[in-house]
Amino acid sequence: MEKVNLQAKFDAIHDHWVPRVVGELNGQHVKVAKIQGEYVWHHHADEDEMFLVNAGQLVLELPDRKVTLGPGEFFVVPRGVEHRPIAKEVVEVVLFEPATTRNTGQVENDYTIEAEDLERI
Amino acid sequence: MEKVNLQAKFDAIHDHWVPRVVGELNGQHVKVAKIQGEYVWHHHADEDEMFLVNAGQLVLELPDRKVTLGPGEFFVVPRGVEHRPIAKEVVEVVLFEPATTRNTGQVENDYTIEAEDLERI
Repeated sequence: MEKVNLQAKFDAIHDHWVPRVVGELNGQHVKVAKIQGEYVWHHHADEDEMFLVNAGQLVLELPDRKVTLGPGEFFVVPRGVEHRPIAKEVVEVVLFEPATTRNTGQVENDYTIEAEDLERI
Repeated sequence: MEKVNLQAKFDAIHDHWVPRVVGELNGQHVKVAKIQGEYVWHHHADEDEMFLVNAGQLVLELPDRKVTLGPGEFFVVPRGVEHRPIAKEVVEVVLFEPATTRNTGQVENDYTIEAEDLERI
């Protein structure tokens, strides 16, 4: 049990779209990721997913609208809802979600990392 | 489903030690509170509790040590572990914990608010 400094975790990340686990509680994971570019449309059938922005501007495309998040803003994508994160410039994002959550949801592609294979930093 | 700006939520709070719900996902609550002073020693038998500091310096007293958290730092107090938050100056803290969590754990005192009575802002 050590405290976690979010910025220090982000500063240690030098790739994009690879979530890493920085905390665990009640079957949930706290993850951090740097992202840039357009992700893939996907959903998580059984998991609500929270996006909290640490730095940058994150656009969450949803079926009926776009939500733009800046630092200190969060949004919860309910289970089953299709979404696509987009980051024109690099975004640092904190994710809260069940430990079972696969990053690309029902989609399998080059970004996919199985939940049990996520790195802890 | 709207995005949440954490600072705007904190700015709307004018009391201390009263957690308010600002998000809900997977049976968990995201809460915000302003705190100042010394809380009561307590534990949560069945809930891990995450403290993420938005502003100020939070001291978490634990049975064997003290953890000091500044902005952007978090700590998870595991279920069953006694703890006491202390804030010399006002601290803005985000809490992430099961929706069942009672703020004073097993202790009942003037601070106690039952989980189902928490205000949503």
